[in-house]
Amino acid sequence: MKVKTSLLLGTVLIAAIHGIVRAAEDPLPSWNDGPGKKAVVDFVARVTKEGSPGFVPVAERIAVFDNDGTLWAEQPMYVQLAFALDRVKALSSQHPEWKTKEPFASLLKGDLKGALAGGEPAIFQIVMATHAGMTTEEFEKTVRDWIATAKHPKTGRLYTEMVYQPMLELLAYLRANGFKTWIVSGGGQEFMRPWTERVYGIPPEQVIGSHGELKYELRDGKPVLVKEAKVALIDDKAGKPVGIQKFIGRRPIFAFGNSDGDLEMLQWTAAGSGPRFMGLVHHTDAEREWAYDRKSSIGRLDKGLDEAKAKGWTVVDMKRDWRRVFPFEKP
Amino acid sequence: MKVKTSLLLGTVLIAAIHGIVRAAEDPLPSWNDGPGKKAVVDFVARVTKEGSPGFVPVAERIAVFDNDGTLWAEQPMYVQLAFALDRVKALSSQHPEWKTKEPFASLLKGDLKGALAGGEPAIFQIVMATHAGMTTEEFEKTVRDWIATAKHPKTGRLYTEMVYQPMLELLAYLRANGFKTWIVSGGGQEFMRPWTERVYGIPPEQVIGSHGELKYELRDGKPVLVKEAKVALIDDKAGKPVGIQKFIGRRPIFAFGNSDGDLEMLQWTAAGSGPRFMGLVHHTDAEREWAYDRKSSIGRLDKGLDEAKAKGWTVVDMKRDWRRVFPFEKP
Repeated sequence: MKVKTSLLLGTVLIAAIHGIVRAAEDPLPSWNDGPGKKAVVDFVARVTKEGSPGFVPVAERIAVFDNDGTLWAEQPMYVQLAFALDRVKALSSQHPEWKTKEPFASLLKGDLKGALAGGEPAIFQIVMATHAGMTTEEFEKTVRDWIATAKHPKTGRLYTEMVYQPMLELLAYLRANGFKTWIVSGGGQEFMRPWTERVYGIPPEQVIGSHGELKYELRDGKPVLVKEAKVALIDDKAGKPVGIQKFIGRRPIFAFGNSDGDLEMLQWTAAGSGPRFMGLVHHTDAEREWAYDRKSSIGRLDKGLDEAKAKGWTVVDMKRDWRRVFPFEKP
Repeated sequence: MKVKTSLLLGTVLIAAIHGIVRAAEDPLPSWNDGPGKKAVVDFVARVTKEGSPGFVPVAERIAVFDNDGTLWAEQPMYVQLAFALDRVKALSSQHPEWKTKEPFASLLKGDLKGALAGGEPAIFQIVMATHAGMTTEEFEKTVRDWIATAKHPKTGRLYTEMVYQPMLELLAYLRANGFKTWIVSGGGQEFMRPWTERVYGIPPEQVIGSHGELKYELRDGKPVLVKEAKVALIDDKAGKPVGIQKFIGRRPIFAFGNSDGDLEMLQWTAAGSGPRFMGLVHHTDAEREWAYDRKSSIGRLDKGLDEAKAKGWTVVDMKRDWRRVFPFEKP
């Protein structure tokens, strides 16, 4: 009996230790086992195995990620729009003309819907009025100050807490396997760069986004770069492969998005030779996050969903594939 | 006597070993001892010493280098112009109109001086006619093929051998000390990227240069990026800080150039806080390379030389400071 007990105890102990070791070794603990996780792990194993036909040298392990809706939540509105709206309020005393000029007039009355009724041109006006004219250093400070305190309207969490835990794990997992991780976002390049290193481990020089022209000039004898009200790149849709070529100069082998704005980036990635990974986050979890796809005005995923199915790209079903969505949820 | 001999022998041996170790340890063997080498070594020691007031974290160790005249020879003409001239010849059969149209007509008659009499607009026409219209992949292949065989008109060496050995050592030395090394050149971004990794150890995504707009389109159902005849950035003079901010998004702490085209890049680097290194290659060696500065049409160094002296920037005198200029010279 004594021997049996100690054997049993030993077996239990060993099993427990195995469990701990397995959990400690799993680089993607917030991903449920399933096709999504398997596709990622299989791909990484394939391209990192030296001597195998799928092997990819470290220098060519380029992974690109959309930001809004792929790395952090984009509902109920793009975070950068929330930033711009706060800036309109902060700057309104310097712009008395905004009281009677749309889209600012509606905005200042708290009528967001009315302000955005003008569609993209209205948004463009808001962004330019709040982003252009200042120096890059002034703008960076404004973003840093805002992002340190601004909170999500629904959860009351900091926006930088509204990032997807499984994607943080995926970024770290790829980097541990020699990948260089990049953001390729329709959002503003200079809006993301001040915090992506701290939040995602992605340094500013690996952040590609929409951006305007800059002008070098001397102010009080000191060189500054002034943000101009002139678009240089809209890094969305067909602009994403353009941004990738301009900034990276080689084709990614791994691309992750969540909307039709990412379709060309995924197509561009898919069209290269050798092993490729194309992934889409499918927002299916109305309880823990939001559920939206084909008819959403923000982050619409329609053509992309069809193409992913037709081409066998990986569609991550948030509800099914993610054990945990946000870092603040209990593991 | 026996003891004395063995002591002497021991001393000689130890001295010899010390000498070998010292040489093996010198990361800059092609630099003569002097103020240029000392400034570099002192700066690197200062910013890498943890706990010291000058310490700079690895992520912020950004070093930028001009290319033409700083990393490789730019005389008697920019290498990219030689490439463009060869392309004009290669493409002339498809362009019968060039026979009577300047600057192409003069060029095809072998009259380089006449062709370039039109100044920058003429060069611009030549570059656009030979660079635009093709896809980025086609252009990359054209560059790869050309650079593999094209030779310098004076030395008969491959252009990729006409690189400065002391600068190769400096790039490697900085990288060994946690720096990320970047090229910031007035030359074409897509002309440099196909070979900078092999020649300088600088990957394409760390090469910033002048570049045109790109257009994403489908050709035979396959996505391509087409080079358009529209300038996006002239990465020279005030364009250099602009390129740095767009691509890197943080200010370099180390910058090296050789001409007035690099002045704004050096000023932008100098204007940051904390330790800074600003360096200029001064072409003073007519025998091993070329001697030119204030009045040269290529790589003019005039205002920069004055500002360097006034501000205490490091001016590397090629004749005095470099033991060896090119890798093919005997060490």
